Amino acid sequence: MAQDCVFCKIAVGELSAQVEMENEDIIAFRDIHPEAPVHILIIPKKHIASLVDVTDKDSGMLGRIQLAAAELAEKHKLDRGFRLVTNCGHEGGQTVEHLHYHLLGGRQLTWPPG
Amino acid sequence: MAQDCVFCKIAVGELSAQVEMENEDIIAFRDIHPEAPVHILIIPKKHIASLVDVTDKDSGMLGRIQLAAAELAEKHKLDRGFRLVTNCGHEGGQTVEHLHYHLLGGRQLTWPPG
Repeated sequence: MAQDCVFCKIAVGELSAQVEMENEDIIAFRDIHPEAPVHILIIPKKHIASLVDVTDKDSGMLGRIQLAAAELAEKHKLDRGFRLVTNCGHEGGQTVEHLHYHLLGGRQLTWPPG
Repeated sequence: MAQDCVFCKIAVGELSAQVEMENEDIIAFRDIHPEAPVHILIIPKKHIASLVDVTDKDSGMLGRIQLAAAELAEKHKLDRGFRLVTNCGHEGGQTVEHLHYHLLGGRQLTWPPG
């Protein structure tokens, strides 16, 4: 756990969030600034700053985040589709320095993606 | 391989593409309609229509796609950041029915992501 990381605090329950799913190494919760009717963040519980900081050992967890996105899309009946996004660094638009994937659905997503 | 799937054809070399990396189960190539100075598609060689069609057995491959994105970002010196996006279904903006992740970098990405 990284000190002063809000997502680490959510992962250990120190900060509250509207949790959507949780397992051993992943937690998913509602984005507090939603950009779509369904906007969920999926994160590893372990502190990893961004996708450039992952190692081969994180591959399993990264795969499970993708599966979690599909599971959450089904739970929220996003049959018409959804978008899954991760931002890395300033030009990627990353605002919290803890790896997170945005699941967005419930409206037509446009192109380009930002 | 799915018949008439352009990405399957790229995966087996029947259609040409500007390949950026390739290993046993993944291939990455330039998007022909780039939305950023660096715009690469990363796909499983195996035909999977979208993220809703993956199974637990695909977890390893999905994790390796994320690692490949980080590797390609490093190769292209996207030190200032990048965005990784997968679209699923009509509302997600999916246009090719073969699972693919868009790696976009080399410019400021905006929010929301479409």
